[in-house]
Amino acid sequence: MRGVIMHAPGDVRVEDREDPTIIEPTDAIIRLAATCICGSDLWPYRGVDKLDEPTPMGHEYVGIVERVGNGVKTIEPGQFVVGSFFASDNTCEICRAGYQTHCVHRQLGAATGAQSELARIPLADGTLVATPQPPPAELVPSLLAASDVLGTGWFAAVAADVGPGKTVAVVGDGAVGLLGVLAARQLGADRVIAMSRHASRQALAREFGATDIVAERGDDGVAKIKDLTNGLGAHSVIEAVGTQESMMQAIRATRPGGHVGYVGVAHDVQLPGEELFFSGVHLHGGPAPVRQYLPELIDLIWRRQVDPGKVFDLTLPLEDAAEGYKAMDERRAIKTLLTV
Amino acid sequence: MRGVIMHAPGDVRVEDREDPTIIEPTDAIIRLAATCICGSDLWPYRGVDKLDEPTPMGHEYVGIVERVGNGVKTIEPGQFVVGSFFASDNTCEICRAGYQTHCVHRQLGAATGAQSELARIPLADGTLVATPQPPPAELVPSLLAASDVLGTGWFAAVAADVGPGKTVAVVGDGAVGLLGVLAARQLGADRVIAMSRHASRQALAREFGATDIVAERGDDGVAKIKDLTNGLGAHSVIEAVGTQESMMQAIRATRPGGHVGYVGVAHDVQLPGEELFFSGVHLHGGPAPVRQYLPELIDLIWRRQVDPGKVFDLTLPLEDAAEGYKAMDERRAIKTLLTV
Repeated sequence: MRGVIMHAPGDVRVEDREDPTIIEPTDAIIRLAATCICGSDLWPYRGVDKLDEPTPMGHEYVGIVERVGNGVKTIEPGQFVVGSFFASDNTCEICRAGYQTHCVHRQLGAATGAQSELARIPLADGTLVATPQPPPAELVPSLLAASDVLGTGWFAAVAADVGPGKTVAVVGDGAVGLLGVLAARQLGADRVIAMSRHASRQALAREFGATDIVAERGDDGVAKIKDLTNGLGAHSVIEAVGTQESMMQAIRATRPGGHVGYVGVAHDVQLPGEELFFSGVHLHGGPAPVRQYLPELIDLIWRRQVDPGKVFDLTLPLEDAAEGYKAMDERRAIKTLLTV
Repeated sequence: MRGVIMHAPGDVRVEDREDPTIIEPTDAIIRLAATCICGSDLWPYRGVDKLDEPTPMGHEYVGIVERVGNGVKTIEPGQFVVGSFFASDNTCEICRAGYQTHCVHRQLGAATGAQSELARIPLADGTLVATPQPPPAELVPSLLAASDVLGTGWFAAVAADVGPGKTVAVVGDGAVGLLGVLAARQLGADRVIAMSRHASRQALAREFGATDIVAERGDDGVAKIKDLTNGLGAHSVIEAVGTQESMMQAIRATRPGGHVGYVGVAHDVQLPGEELFFSGVHLHGGPAPVRQYLPELIDLIWRRQVDPGKVFDLTLPLEDAAEGYKAMDERRAIKTLLTV
């Protein structure tokens, strides 16, 4: 099969690779209907995360099940499935509490890489969720978004305790932040403030339900959020960047007793304990348990209630993955869908 | 009146001071029935917190209202009242959300110091809660505990999402930690693990409802909590110390998706963002909104359902406050009550 390998920062190649095979009896092999590039793939692309060796890329996937191991009981060949970046048994105590990304048996969801024609998915019964039928083509981008960025934005909104009567601020205008806007709206927030300086992203934020846009960032952005909330700060703040600045912006933009839901992978972030203490905010986040939300998100997409696939503003064939990475790195694209 | 002044680390004196007077029309003057020394008073006593000038001490208080300003509407002279370390209007949006310690009009609860015969309490209507009648003497220590350490332990338990079916671990065996044990039990926790190396504190923890004791701390303590919880960690962890070690011990002893309620004032603590991210825990804490819980706590004490006054294992006259500080600093006493 063909698949994306990152050799070094900035060096992404599409190569011939061995087809994945069933290794554990709980594995499934899927043929991807589409795949995509994640904002988090830019961390190694930019050299922030170290790569020790050439690495298969991609962890967002939808596709048709080709084969399953003899321990797989509910997932069947021919089904169209959506999975997430961590495989989980969905039966352990942690999974049952809704934290499948911390499953006691967790593994990478697409250990062989998902920017490829085929992928091996471990713990198929616990990890994969089948759609009612194979979807029409126009739903594939949204289902692919559910695999990570929608599920992650949704978790961020839940972690930020979004709900009716709340004012929500969203730090970060990448795909996750924008889908945090969509999630906040779906979860009933009264007011959703998107923090973005980019006209095209502001427009998509509005389309997803943002009621206000704040272009300022850092202390100025915090001051603007306070201006919009009687000086108190937002009830709920979604943090979808993962830098020191964005985390502090999120904490400072939240009112005492309010909630920060953070899903940007915190690189080199140190939270000052005393400031956090006196802020009185709730803090929750981490790798999103997308699996928890997949049935609900697939249903919303299936019923055309949401169209998260709009975050894909660049579509390229898998063979042009390198250009897809470049466009996202240069912020020419929000998110790149790769057709397989 | 007589009152405690801290002149420098380790230098506590009881001196003649001006009687406090009504300054704002919303003030009340109370005559203290009893007062006490807080674990947080040890921070300046040990020189960790800087003192710029001789400072009146004490922020925990119960007593009889002597006089009120002409703007006070519900609190009346003759009532026995309990207040907390921050004064709050109890009407602003933040107060109504239950975060009175972050009231938009918050002030020190006992601006003139509470280790004294009299104290001025600002925003009396919002801050003070009257008991049904003046209490019998044996309830005074417990009502005094409600003013801070019980309210703080209670908030920590609520912040840690304690409830039926949960296993709770408590980091810290000071008065707040011990009353966190009591709160966890009252809030229905199945199992409460007190972390303590001191026999007398272990005994009091058991009296307050601890089901298990872990004497280890740091990584060994975390390993022990995991041993007791199928390798997963506690559902809820109360942090009542406020050091880097205790915060990390609390976070690491919590299962993914679990809750840390932290009320130790975080001194020189830096939380590593990436570890926090991948821990998947909820973090909430800060200065406890004791006012929120006072009606409920007073009721529990009044009905003899709880006896938090047991944390006072040393009782001295106000004149001997210096010895009270010394006994707590040397950990000879858990908490010192000062009779007035």
